[in-house]
Amino acid sequence: MTPPVARIATRIHCAEPLREAARIDLGEGPAHYLRHVLRLPPGAEIALFNGQDGEFAGRIDGFAKSRVTIVLGACRRAPGTEPDLWLCFAPIKRTRLDAMVEKATELGVARLMPVFTRHTVMERVNRERLAAIAAEAAGQCERLSVPVVDEPVAFEELLAHWPADRPLITADESGGGTPIAGALAGLSGPLAVLTGPEGGFARSELDALGRAVFVRRVGLGPRILRADTAAIAALAIVQAVAGDGARAPRSVAQDEDARD
Amino acid sequence: MTPPVARIATRIHCAEPLREAARIDLGEGPAHYLRHVLRLPPGAEIALFNGQDGEFAGRIDGFAKSRVTIVLGACRRAPGTEPDLWLCFAPIKRTRLDAMVEKATELGVARLMPVFTRHTVMERVNRERLAAIAAEAAGQCERLSVPVVDEPVAFEELLAHWPADRPLITADESGGGTPIAGALAGLSGPLAVLTGPEGGFARSELDALGRAVFVRRVGLGPRILRADTAAIAALAIVQAVAGDGARAPRSVAQDEDARD
Repeated sequence: MTPPVARIATRIHCAEPLREAARIDLGEGPAHYLRHVLRLPPGAEIALFNGQDGEFAGRIDGFAKSRVTIVLGACRRAPGTEPDLWLCFAPIKRTRLDAMVEKATELGVARLMPVFTRHTVMERVNRERLAAIAAEAAGQCERLSVPVVDEPVAFEELLAHWPADRPLITADESGGGTPIAGALAGLSGPLAVLTGPEGGFARSELDALGRAVFVRRVGLGPRILRADTAAIAALAIVQAVAGDGARAPRSVAQDEDARD
Repeated sequence: MTPPVARIATRIHCAEPLREAARIDLGEGPAHYLRHVLRLPPGAEIALFNGQDGEFAGRIDGFAKSRVTIVLGACRRAPGTEPDLWLCFAPIKRTRLDAMVEKATELGVARLMPVFTRHTVMERVNRERLAAIAAEAAGQCERLSVPVVDEPVAFEELLAHWPADRPLITADESGGGTPIAGALAGLSGPLAVLTGPEGGFARSELDALGRAVFVRRVGLGPRILRADTAAIAALAIVQAVAGDGARAPRSVAQDEDARD
């Protein structure tokens, strides 16, 4: 059994390769966050993760004008496998979209795919903002990876190029879907969830979803959920029933072991 | 089979008894909302529901200074049973608390119970604001009832007076809980979910939860969820696995089987 490792409160995602004793320079965003938001002094302990090399302990060596230098310590966590779950979503209004991206990250989504549907009101997606929200949420929830935020695609394109071996779980407000817990039974491997805009899918889109063999139309119960609620609920249920919901948190569990 | 009845977009919760052809006066809040937020004119069709009498069609008869008069039409939905699910939650920061209350309402919670725990940072709960958010969310998600918002209680009090026949599902970050999908299998009837504050439960609180026979400590997977995410995820999973997740939306699908 490996010795327990206490959680480090500040976890920062970076793109650079990580290895023991390396010196890493991070740019303006992390430098500002560590220095002015968290007010950490040189010498403070943080952790870095990058989605490839796992997580490393690090110490702030010093701040420059728009840069912070970190000296890496030991590897704290080896790279691990994370769920192969995508969220395809019609962009919704900003506050709700931001919260949805945060929660989707916490719930283990690997890829965030904006989809323009007929009733989508939003005309643009700020991928950089969503990626920043995902990176911060990944840091706080002990993930080793940050979800990728795709370029938006049109609804028809999404269906036309969909990988046939990945079931696309779609919430169906019309009452025609299979209750989600039953629909997920026996599913595992690659999965995706699709949610519509505030006004729901157009009739023609529901018809197209009905014809696609990879689509599983599911029901989320008798109440009409908002788009963001539907996405968060569906992802939570997918992870609990067909995802990694049976795994325990790692670093905290080991902390507890240490106390026993 | 009765013909399907279209949804009425504007559904308003009220405390008054509802019966066909009654005239109902609503106060300043609904009057402002209908007149200035939705800009509805006299004659506009709305629906009223009150948690006891079901849902009635209504027509705006006229506005007075801080009042609106509605003339009721036919009963659209008979009173129905809704899930007996409570959410006990440590108050968290305002924006996240408001969103949590909205989503808990959409997910069918009957009672919202604020609980002050040792690490709870918030010192007060604005019950009126939470009740207003719950009423608006209930209107939008086709519920016939609005969750009750309780007076806050202390954590020790909550456990001391807990009804023994209601399992209390508690998210356990320490990794010691049973995976939630398995823990819920076979459960039905009265249920409750308990979530902690931003900083989690204190060691002594976790010990007290461990000793309480009605507590089911569950795991929500390997990631550390924020307090609001944990509440929403747990409620969604409870409804899908042990609640009314197998029922379809009523007004959209098989509208009005209760009408005649």
